[in-house]
Amino acid sequence: MDNHLVAVALDKAYRLLNHGPTVLVSARHQGISNVMAAAWSCALDFMPPKVSVVLDKATVTRSLIEQSGEFVLQVPTARQLALTHAVGNVSLAEDVDKLAHCGVTLFDAPDGSGPLVQGCAAWLHCRLIPEPHNQQTYDLFIGEVTAAWADDRVFRDGHWQFETADPEWRSLHYVAGGHFYAIGEALDVPADEASVNL
Amino acid sequence: MDNHLVAVALDKAYRLLNHGPTVLVSARHQGISNVMAAAWSCALDFMPPKVSVVLDKATVTRSLIEQSGEFVLQVPTARQLALTHAVGNVSLAEDVDKLAHCGVTLFDAPDGSGPLVQGCAAWLHCRLIPEPHNQQTYDLFIGEVTAAWADDRVFRDGHWQFETADPEWRSLHYVAGGHFYAIGEALDVPADEASVNL
Repeated sequence: MDNHLVAVALDKAYRLLNHGPTVLVSARHQGISNVMAAAWSCALDFMPPKVSVVLDKATVTRSLIEQSGEFVLQVPTARQLALTHAVGNVSLAEDVDKLAHCGVTLFDAPDGSGPLVQGCAAWLHCRLIPEPHNQQTYDLFIGEVTAAWADDRVFRDGHWQFETADPEWRSLHYVAGGHFYAIGEALDVPADEASVNL
Repeated sequence: MDNHLVAVALDKAYRLLNHGPTVLVSARHQGISNVMAAAWSCALDFMPPKVSVVLDKATVTRSLIEQSGEFVLQVPTARQLALTHAVGNVSLAEDVDKLAHCGVTLFDAPDGSGPLVQGCAAWLHCRLIPEPHNQQTYDLFIGEVTAAWADDRVFRDGHWQFETADPEWRSLHYVAGGHFYAIGEALDVPADEASVNL
């Protein structure tokens, strides 16, 4: 799949999260890697791009991020429905083979950063901006995006291509109880209205 | 439409935002009301429910929230595509008739809180939790949800009903440049996998 991995310009990185997908959060520290799912993640700034993500105190991934100071947000696809639900409901603290059992394969980005989850639609490598009050009070973590990539079968030229890509590439949007929605049809504001309002 | 407005239990309020819709943010202070669009809004806690939203310093809505200490997040629908794009691109500072020009009709909730935008799928009334550092440094505002409502044609019994409701009720997920996606098909993790992983 590496020949489909393309760099995304930092000033376009917010577009990878702008439509509100459920993300996978990955991190590693001293040889230990983990991946969790997070519905509560959001873009926070355009340039330099920043993101926010809520990480419960019980998660191993949060501990790895606190120690390593970095993490990766990635956008899983409809094909990864079971994987996404599984990594959000199994803890590495209870199953040391969690990633294998959940069907996760990790790889490193061309610049050596990682860990990235194979098969996702997009990846954002982030440097943690330490904010102890937010982290303790709200479980809220803020990161600056230092590099971003996408699979060019679903994101290219700075835009998602959901309307023409295979439906298996659609992003996932979690509600509750194993119930997700895939992203749906494109809706464009008519050009005359868009220009009046810009 | 009031006979379709139903209260949403606070412990289910997070579900109104969990799938990552673009929201409308409304506020009023001393008789002045305004509405803006925000793609960067997110659930932050289950109970009591909290939310986050990014509000640029240039927006009038932010100023109203800072002065009144409250705001409403609401989930606009595909039918409100033009309205949603318009309120995100016209400023009350430049057009005192912005709301009328954008097609916005406001109303108050049964408990008197507001302003709520008519025609949306769901509404969350929030009390601002002042966090000056977040607000100044990141334009990040945190609120506690004090009441929530939904239109029972698209959200009832604690769940979105996008798969059976008219497609005009689908939530909007903004990317950039007047380009949105509607929320799409339901995807459910098979019950046996869901139970293994919970």
